[in-house]
Amino acid sequence: MTRRDPPDPALLALNAATLQTQAGLRQIIEACARHAFHGLGLWHAQLCEPGRQQSTRQTVRDTARQLRDHGLVLTSLGLASQMPALERKPRREAIEQVRRAIDDAVELSAQCLLLNVGGLPQGSRDLQGARDMVRDALGELLEQARSAGIALAIEPLHPLFCAERSCISTLTQANDLCQELAGASGGGIGVVVDVWQQWWDPTLPAQIRRAGEAKRLLLYQVADWLVHAADSAAMKSGRGMMGDGVIDLPLLRSWMEAAEYRGLHEVEVVSPADWALRDIDEILITVRRRHQECS
Amino acid sequence: MTRRDPPDPALLALNAATLQTQAGLRQIIEACARHAFHGLGLWHAQLCEPGRQQSTRQTVRDTARQLRDHGLVLTSLGLASQMPALERKPRREAIEQVRRAIDDAVELSAQCLLLNVGGLPQGSRDLQGARDMVRDALGELLEQARSAGIALAIEPLHPLFCAERSCISTLTQANDLCQELAGASGGGIGVVVDVWQQWWDPTLPAQIRRAGEAKRLLLYQVADWLVHAADSAAMKSGRGMMGDGVIDLPLLRSWMEAAEYRGLHEVEVVSPADWALRDIDEILITVRRRHQECS
Repeated sequence: MTRRDPPDPALLALNAATLQTQAGLRQIIEACARHAFHGLGLWHAQLCEPGRQQSTRQTVRDTARQLRDHGLVLTSLGLASQMPALERKPRREAIEQVRRAIDDAVELSAQCLLLNVGGLPQGSRDLQGARDMVRDALGELLEQARSAGIALAIEPLHPLFCAERSCISTLTQANDLCQELAGASGGGIGVVVDVWQQWWDPTLPAQIRRAGEAKRLLLYQVADWLVHAADSAAMKSGRGMMGDGVIDLPLLRSWMEAAEYRGLHEVEVVSPADWALRDIDEILITVRRRHQECS
Repeated sequence: MTRRDPPDPALLALNAATLQTQAGLRQIIEACARHAFHGLGLWHAQLCEPGRQQSTRQTVRDTARQLRDHGLVLTSLGLASQMPALERKPRREAIEQVRRAIDDAVELSAQCLLLNVGGLPQGSRDLQGARDMVRDALGELLEQARSAGIALAIEPLHPLFCAERSCISTLTQANDLCQELAGASGGGIGVVVDVWQQWWDPTLPAQIRRAGEAKRLLLYQVADWLVHAADSAAMKSGRGMMGDGVIDLPLLRSWMEAAEYRGLHEVEVVSPADWALRDIDEILITVRRRHQECS
């Protein structure tokens, strides 16, 4: 691992997916405050009744207050969207869902609205068509995002998820999209660098630099890639704690710093088969230590 | 799926990994001949005693004779190499292993030596360093490959396998490597397009064109990406039969044809949880039909 000074501990934030199986929203917020995290990333589904796409006013209001009371910044509000669809109706519904999430992001003072854009429509093999639909949907949403002061943060997911969760698979694609929709440096839209999704990409340092120059580095998410990940049944979400895998995290952080990213480091260890079974306080103590020692 | 004329049935070839759990080398060759396949891709490990890296003279000689007797072209001899290593000794051993495989490829009249180049060295997080070692090793092997008339065929594997099996994850990387080592159009080295590994890559059509212009399209491998692949325990090798997944195979074939690839279509459905449990003749009948109907 590249040797560097440890990161500023004040930059530590947590993505709630790390604790999602153990705790509800209120518990997660309290745990982050108890361990002196400065930021939290939430998923929009956590604001909704199970099975519903729409948040309840009360939950959003309560969550906003709890975040304020505990001095926590909402580093991201995440939305798993499915923008590509063969019919017009589900395409419109996906856009409406993002519109509501922008409103919620405003009320929660989120630093960005993180978007998983969706994969191929059911029964479709038209990957370019799906990507075009994502571009059109984001284009339509950009004005509202700008008026609301909530940047749309495109998260390229690992190519593994291309069929189901995100047809945007690389930071190059996400940067290209931003440039096409907002020009060389227009605001309201940007990118997420999630090391677990993107560590393998040989163009990553150049694309981080490019996003930095356009002021589009909206969020840095941290986990580690376990060597056995490709073998395991937990592949899909078996991410490692920093230091347990093969990503040179200090090196990736140095790329972010060189590109003038000054935001928080949102740790997102989605690990149903391992960390999800452990005690919340143990996890957060480990996250804090590993952030210092291994990232 | 894009509508196109079906491919020439005479272009059908099989990669032996499709039948590896059901049959030995001789049975696979006989089955391919029985079903009038024109080509076969073998893995070097199939020529070796279990657990050994070295083929036996007798097996290579017998296999060459069987292929000749049945009129089968060896579309590829595949080698799972591990070129990156922290110590000099295993790096030299990996090179020696490729050298022996080149000799075997000559004896078998293989159309290319397909290389999985290997992932990160054990205990290493230096991905760029691993990629540099691959470049150095291939550079050292190029002269022998040229003298022997056996082109080294770099296969970019899915980013999923970046840590363990191939730090070359994209066709862009493979093309860049060829260009660096052999100049704009020098021979002896080229690339494999495996649709299952690379279908998600938005730069694929441009990179297929680029490889075609440099006369470096050495092999086309075909399977399908199952939508549930990312969820399943069989993720690593649960490939789909053509038509069962989400890849627009006729479109990808059209890119290969436009780039003047005239080689065979090597079907490689590695599917331990499904096709590997079926009858050999059923599989080959299905492969032949799906090649016509769905690719």
